[in-house]
Amino acid sequence: MVAPMTDCLIPPSHRDLLTPPAPVSLATLGPTGYPQVTAIWALLDGDVIVTSLAGIRQKLTNLVAHPQATVFAIDPANPYRTLEVRADVTITPDPELALLQKLLAAYGTDLESFPGPLDGRVAVTLQPVRVVTLG
Amino acid sequence: MVAPMTDCLIPPSHRDLLTPPAPVSLATLGPTGYPQVTAIWALLDGDVIVTSLAGIRQKLTNLVAHPQATVFAIDPANPYRTLEVRADVTITPDPELALLQKLLAAYGTDLESFPGPLDGRVAVTLQPVRVVTLG
Repeated sequence: MVAPMTDCLIPPSHRDLLTPPAPVSLATLGPTGYPQVTAIWALLDGDVIVTSLAGIRQKLTNLVAHPQATVFAIDPANPYRTLEVRADVTITPDPELALLQKLLAAYGTDLESFPGPLDGRVAVTLQPVRVVTLG
Repeated sequence: MVAPMTDCLIPPSHRDLLTPPAPVSLATLGPTGYPQVTAIWALLDGDVIVTSLAGIRQKLTNLVAHPQATVFAIDPANPYRTLEVRADVTITPDPELALLQKLLAAYGTDLESFPGPLDGRVAVTLQPVRVVTLG
């Protein structure tokens, strides 16, 4: 059993797990005490993770109420290589959809092809407070 | 955008995502308010999910304090096919390592080859209260 490496920086060895086109998991805390976990599109911006969420999403409601969340990624090619990033969350409006468009471009698509809701889009920044890597 | 299907039963369409040998993610709530997410080995036992945890694991400490957890799986072959199971957690001692051995066998290994800790092994049962599938 290899001991996990922990830090508050995302190490070069595992940054690829936060690189498109693979989605990652986002764990938030729901109103009834159960974690909510969904797959999201995300980007690394220096040492923080950014994503775009729609106003109607439960995960956004969760983050407003409890701005501590965790991003988790498993290497699809090696499920024993993982990255966990526990983070403090900052939410800012994205009325011009600037972050959404940047995210869509990174995932090889654009606003015209995007089937998701656009209303109330926000930019979510996840500032790592603890990073755990395995593999 | 396809609306997710929700229920408290794990549907046949997504049960394969809880079938070895792919690990799944387990989200618990940590003592400082951040979700903790790790990859675990798990099994479906009828309509509940079971796993084995060692006594020294932070995730077990988290579950004792807050017995609500979420299992999440992404299809390695199609990252838009996902299964989220929010669950109530029951913890029982496993001094004979019966569940651990069953789990190891399902993952193609055994106690002799298993590098993980054996002390304080418990059987963790996750009773679904909400199941969300996509794809």
